[in-house]
Amino acid sequence: MGLRAASLIRDIPDFPEPGIVFKDITPILRDPQAYREVVGLLSEGVAQLQGEVVCGVESRGFLFGAPVALDLGLPFVPLRKPGKLPYRTTSEEYELEYGSSAIEIHVDAINAGERVVIIDDLLATGGTAAAANRLIARAGGVIAGSMFVIELGFLKGRDKLTAGDVRSLILFE
Amino acid sequence: MGLRAASLIRDIPDFPEPGIVFKDITPILRDPQAYREVVGLLSEGVAQLQGEVVCGVESRGFLFGAPVALDLGLPFVPLRKPGKLPYRTTSEEYELEYGSSAIEIHVDAINAGERVVIIDDLLATGGTAAAANRLIARAGGVIAGSMFVIELGFLKGRDKLTAGDVRSLILFE
Repeated sequence: MGLRAASLIRDIPDFPEPGIVFKDITPILRDPQAYREVVGLLSEGVAQLQGEVVCGVESRGFLFGAPVALDLGLPFVPLRKPGKLPYRTTSEEYELEYGSSAIEIHVDAINAGERVVIIDDLLATGGTAAAANRLIARAGGVIAGSMFVIELGFLKGRDKLTAGDVRSLILFE
Repeated sequence: MGLRAASLIRDIPDFPEPGIVFKDITPILRDPQAYREVVGLLSEGVAQLQGEVVCGVESRGFLFGAPVALDLGLPFVPLRKPGKLPYRTTSEEYELEYGSSAIEIHVDAINAGERVVIIDDLLATGGTAAAANRLIARAGGVIAGSMFVIELGFLKGRDKLTAGDVRSLILFE
């Protein structure tokens, strides 16, 4: 992969549940050179996709999406768990292995027709990412793309993302 | 106050509970000039305090702390709600109006003697901020200071913060 950041990702077995190997990105955040590298590559991607707004998914997506928006001088819009955004919201549910969850956006967060790039740390099964795509579409945005620091290719999450481009920096096949 | 960001803060009555007026900072994030202004001022503060590590408190603290760390080329360390950090953690409880909560840090996140600046969006009663201070001290760090975008002065949260400097950009007296 060649990225400094890739060499820093830490495997945590059995988190958050037995049998899952969690990709811990906190060592990237502790390494200014690696963190800058990742944010720089994401910013290049957003610029190529001609994004006009950057959305970050709570809460690790904030760590990458917000610096990208600042670097490019673009608006940043947070997508949050239910009950966290204080103003009026639109909500999208998605399925988990057991039960369901949802993400929300402020109703006035996106202007009609704005080109949006959604950023998160990880693309796994794609449930959250697909919900984020639906949420942006309902909010009136155009999905320019979805970008991830890490993609777990074997879970085929990108098959669920049918709007815009789908890009990741570090692929685990 | 004179800050562009101050004029963008939106009061949300009765959130998250009746009688509370919530300070919504999402309009700052949507305004690249205001967001940059805030991050720039926080970065100046961290530099003045000779911070060596920036800690951000989940999750709105990530939106301000992470860009500051990147701007200054410093390590960023997330302080998170219980059960969110995947590796071994140290935890500090704090009191809420009803019951208690906690914040956690990875046990290897801070090197002994590092000068840490903690960043969050809001200083209210100071419960979370005081717990963050205790957590950093237990992790072996030196608290250079605590910085906030907004301070609700009438709640006297800063009286709970006895280590390092306490700074805020926008004060509601």
